[in-house]
Amino acid sequence: MLSKENNETLTRTGPDTPMGKLFRRYWIPAMISTELPKPNCTPVRTKLLGEELLAFRDSEGKVGLIDEFCPHRKVSLYFARNEECGIRCVYHGWKFDVNGDCVDMPSEPPSSNFKHKVKIKSYPCRERGGVIWTYMGPEELMPELPELEWNLVPDSHRYMTRKIQYNNYFQAIEGGLDSSHISFLHRGAGGQGFMGLKKKAESQVANYLTQDTAPKFEVEKMDYGMLVGANRHAEKGSLYWRITQFLMPWYTMIPPYEDTPRGAHAWVPMDDENVYTWNINWNPARPLTDHEMKVLKSGRGIHMELIPGTLRAKQNKENDYLIDRELQASGQSFTGIHGIQAQDSAVQETQGRIADRTQERLGSSDAAIIAARRMMLKAAHDLEEGKTPPALSPETHRVRSASVVLPEGVPFQIGAKEVLALTEEDYVREAELDKETVQTDSMQNAK
Amino acid sequence: MLSKENNETLTRTGPDTPMGKLFRRYWIPAMISTELPKPNCTPVRTKLLGEELLAFRDSEGKVGLIDEFCPHRKVSLYFARNEECGIRCVYHGWKFDVNGDCVDMPSEPPSSNFKHKVKIKSYPCRERGGVIWTYMGPEELMPELPELEWNLVPDSHRYMTRKIQYNNYFQAIEGGLDSSHISFLHRGAGGQGFMGLKKKAESQVANYLTQDTAPKFEVEKMDYGMLVGANRHAEKGSLYWRITQFLMPWYTMIPPYEDTPRGAHAWVPMDDENVYTWNINWNPARPLTDHEMKVLKSGRGIHMELIPGTLRAKQNKENDYLIDRELQASGQSFTGIHGIQAQDSAVQETQGRIADRTQERLGSSDAAIIAARRMMLKAAHDLEEGKTPPALSPETHRVRSASVVLPEGVPFQIGAKEVLALTEEDYVREAELDKETVQTDSMQNAK
Amino acid sequence: MLSKENNETLTRTGPDTPMGKLFRRYWIPAMISTELPKPNCTPVRTKLLGEELLAFRDSEGKVGLIDEFCPHRKVSLYFARNEECGIRCVYHGWKFDVNGDCVDMPSEPPSSNFKHKVKIKSYPCRERGGVIWTYMGPEELMPELPELEWNLVPDSHRYMTRKIQYNNYFQAIEGGLDSSHISFLHRGAGGQGFMGLKKKAESQVANYLTQDTAPKFEVEKMDYGMLVGANRHAEKGSLYWRITQFLMPWYTMIPPYEDTPRGAHAWVPMDDENVYTWNINWNPARPLTDHEMKVLKSGRGIHMELIPGTLRAKQNKENDYLIDRELQASGQSFTGIHGIQAQDSAVQETQGRIADRTQERLGSSDAAIIAARRMMLKAAHDLEEGKTPPALSPETHRVRSASVVLPEGVPFQIGAKEVLALTEEDYVREAELDKETVQTDSMQNAK
Repeated sequence: MLSKENNETLTRTGPDTPMGKLFRRYWIPAMISTELPKPNCTPVRTKLLGEELLAFRDSEGKVGLIDEFCPHRKVSLYFARNEECGIRCVYHGWKFDVNGDCVDMPSEPPSSNFKHKVKIKSYPCRERGGVIWTYMGPEELMPELPELEWNLVPDSHRYMTRKIQYNNYFQAIEGGLDSSHISFLHRGAGGQGFMGLKKKAESQVANYLTQDTAPKFEVEKMDYGMLVGANRHAEKGSLYWRITQFLMPWYTMIPPYEDTPRGAHAWVPMDDENVYTWNINWNPARPLTDHEMKVLKSGRGIHMELIPGTLRAKQNKENDYLIDRELQASGQSFTGIHGIQAQDSAVQETQGRIADRTQERLGSSDAAIIAARRMMLKAAHDLEEGKTPPALSPETHRVRSASVVLPEGVPFQIGAKEVLALTEEDYVREAELDKETVQTDSMQNAK
Repeated sequence: MLSKENNETLTRTGPDTPMGKLFRRYWIPAMISTELPKPNCTPVRTKLLGEELLAFRDSEGKVGLIDEFCPHRKVSLYFARNEECGIRCVYHGWKFDVNGDCVDMPSEPPSSNFKHKVKIKSYPCRERGGVIWTYMGPEELMPELPELEWNLVPDSHRYMTRKIQYNNYFQAIEGGLDSSHISFLHRGAGGQGFMGLKKKAESQVANYLTQDTAPKFEVEKMDYGMLVGANRHAEKGSLYWRITQFLMPWYTMIPPYEDTPRGAHAWVPMDDENVYTWNINWNPARPLTDHEMKVLKSGRGIHMELIPGTLRAKQNKENDYLIDRELQASGQSFTGIHGIQAQDSAVQETQGRIADRTQERLGSSDAAIIAARRMMLKAAHDLEEGKTPPALSPETHRVRSASVVLPEGVPFQIGAKEVLALTEEDYVREAELDKETVQTDSMQNAK
Repeated sequence: MLSKENNETLTRTGPDTPMGKLFRRYWIPAMISTELPKPNCTPVRTKLLGEELLAFRDSEGKVGLIDEFCPHRKVSLYFARNEECGIRCVYHGWKFDVNGDCVDMPSEPPSSNFKHKVKIKSYPCRERGGVIWTYMGPEELMPELPELEWNLVPDSHRYMTRKIQYNNYFQAIEGGLDSSHISFLHRGAGGQGFMGLKKKAESQVANYLTQDTAPKFEVEKMDYGMLVGANRHAEKGSLYWRITQFLMPWYTMIPPYEDTPRGAHAWVPMDDENVYTWNINWNPARPLTDHEMKVLKSGRGIHMELIPGTLRAKQNKENDYLIDRELQASGQSFTGIHGIQAQDSAVQETQGRIADRTQERLGSSDAAIIAARRMMLKAAHDLEEGKTPPALSPETHRVRSASVVLPEGVPFQIGAKEVLALTEEDYVREAELDKETVQTDSMQNAK
């Protein structure tokens, strides 16, 4: 349960809000690179932290992220011409480059100095590992890109989608942190052979999840955010641990199953009532196989089928996520809703656009989300008081989730130490890749 | 004409409003029994007096009416599993029975006492005569079910539908009380032979209604609410009386035509801008015939064709109720709109979601609605002052409407006395039926 | 750039606003005559300056423009019966004539005097030149109809359409005054041979517009409003002038091309967030040819294809005006959007429902719109102080736009004097026509 005031602080992300200021200190995954497939392609309207923006890729392949509206008379630049190294408003021909500079103003006399006085709001962008990153904070405080593993592996090792979810970002994060709900919401979600799991292994894990539905949570504060261990009874004398991280400011890691692709999410606020849900699967060591890709694209897991030309899922609130009541009644699927992500959307979206946390009844299984709220509120509060936000150092994000069986009495941080860290080998390979990153770093302009 | 303040009082029905408190002292027709056709069927989202609720029928056939949202994290229970004697949230498996008790909380350790501390808001329900009734008021003040005739006859004697009308409940009640408008709005509505009327009888009544379009109203306050007599000139020296009741808190009775099925409405506020319009036809003495059912389902009368899977009529504001201008111009139908209920919707919905009564120009034909407003405002005011609301005694609702020709000078209360009361025989037969009523009375829980 | 206060004053048009009071002193083009094609046809709902109204043509062909809602119980008269010399509410049969008088009230006793006390709000209407005009101001201050040329020519000489544009009226006016944008937004709009222009002439004008994209503006205050000259470099030593008028309170004139039909607009506020865009083409001297009509109806110019039964364009914001990105990239069309009017809608509607003028960056090419804002604000302010609004005299609107090449140094007012004025011959012919105008002048009633 949260006070009304704290719920406001937690959920509001505009430029002048405490949480909005905090988020503007981190690099933000703005878009998947393929959403701007080639130079001079159609620009894309987007919204981040409540700001209406336009992303475009110029004739040299550089990405610009600017105010959607021309500073002259405030018409949408969506209709603009993507021309030689800049985007030109169709109303009076004003042209802006990826840095937000006005590089042509043909409606004014050639002698005019006006164009040098006009800039459009623009945010610097970098591309790495299939992601267009942007930074919306003060220029002098810009950190390096966070070294999330999924963003450092080659493209062939990764499958990544995003969609709009129609609720505040934080109830999505809460879902990501809540190891408890998988015993219920996702029961039967995958069907047999899901994610290429060996039959035996699958039933073992499924048994742990089904037989012990009241996991015990242990939460530890880390330099990157928070480490969450949730244990369930396994074979006699041992515990099954699902170990996940919450990485500042909005990343969660999914505990893996054996050698299936690893999974992660980013929950990026579009505005206070909508969130971009990023879904990533990857294998650190090798390309994803055709079979794995087929399974990932099936809609059974964390990737959903979208309405073409949109970031809106076909299964959505208006059609009750296409729930199949007979399937639900049969018990094969706990929900009757197809796919893990759709199941999450169903519960999170029906909490309301901004969940009212003043009326909840939290239990011991909500320990991780309670801790995460406190951590976020503290970070926002600390920033207000002039302290530097946590986890700005890029290497802090170099962590892995885990899923292990340990003897009772062994602390999970010790027992899973090896699997939680990226190996030196991983580091070297990925650092190599990092050097080749195309960087389209354009400096931010004053608004 | 009403002051802004009185119009607010009359139309607002939330938990903390004077009218909302008044309505919560009566049993409320929540749903038609067949909307929950069998044990463990799909639950139904509904809204009553502004409260978002979920109705379900458990494995024993009992009906529960609970808060739509799980008290734990406030996700919709619409997606819940309807299991053995309770409904189970798909997020973390919390299970509630029809009484609102949490009967299982598998996400917490078996030793936890937490589930005994958690209840979900629930309202007691009873089923009788095809209606699921609920009571949303203080437990200790719960009355008995009102003994409306249509709710006491066997199912075979009754045809009942409901739909959502997109305006405040009270302008629907005003329509139901207003005997004057049938000379205009419904002229030509039924066509020849409507409701199996004898040709001669029909034209006689039609003549009264057409020839005298300015009925004189007499209104009398009764223990159940209000008795309204509206007379028109009939044959020399006689008057044609249409006699209707307004029964607290939202029932109206339609004056009958000869031996055609009787008619009534209930207007139950969904919220302040929408109302559930209940339409009931019945024959007290015998089952409805196939021909009568065919006519009732034709859309010519008070029952409308709905968009499948919804309570929304196919003829609606967005399509101008499918008005046929040629039919209107021909004079065969005064409106060119098919069906009595659609005609009523057309005028009532275009008054606005909440009619602005500060600007009206009322005439002498509005006497009944003026009296009804006063009565409702007085009842709400009296309750605020601690007085007991009227018409809580179940037998007060045992009345019948009438349609009679009386000599001039005979008071309608005297002349129609016999037809206005239920006969002893009616009473005995229906009391018999009453005993067999399935009662699924579950006590209300504190919110 | 405008202060928040001035932007409010400029854009609000309700009955009690300064601009709303100013607009109510002029005749208003309410509807195209053919929207009410014949006596007793279906009435039309419309909205003017924020007031919800109903237009109907009675059995004698007279046009009434009345409150959409019956004064009795405030139901929509859209469903009313258009009967002998009046419109009859279907609820209780009250009947009103074009003057707003209640001519029948059959729900009250014949002896009742009530009907003489009830009027419905009505505005006087006149028909001339294909337009239904109305006047919504004080009766005693009613001027004569403005003598706009396009309204005085025979029907065969004119093509006129209107549509709803989904933004405040003034950003549409700004577009109409802004000679600068045609060098960009409309470049390539017409294709070759547009409007029957001689190839050579077209390329000449096109050259002026393409080669000099920074026109110099000269603005002169006139008794009808404002005269705007915008010059571009033409052949050595000469200037190409586009000369347009802004005629109080919302008319703009399009500079003509040779002997193609002349063009004009009216931008009539529906409410503060929507405007009726009137598009008129005409030839003062002769009927439009079949070829001209074909071109006008092609959607290439200022007339758009509408969704049948509505005033909504098929190309609209929801479908991004059906922009063709390949066509845009090819350079054949600057925007890739088909048609001049659609191009204007694209930029004006994306400025927002009411453009925020506190954030603009205006240049020298915005001189005309700056002047127009000042003029409008001054007129509204003057009226508040009791001064008579400008341009109420009908003959002040007798002007023509022009498009001419003049030697440098010659003031455009002098050089284009002859083409800017209507000739005596024009005047005589049109005055003749004026006499034949059907006048359905009905006096306004008090609200």
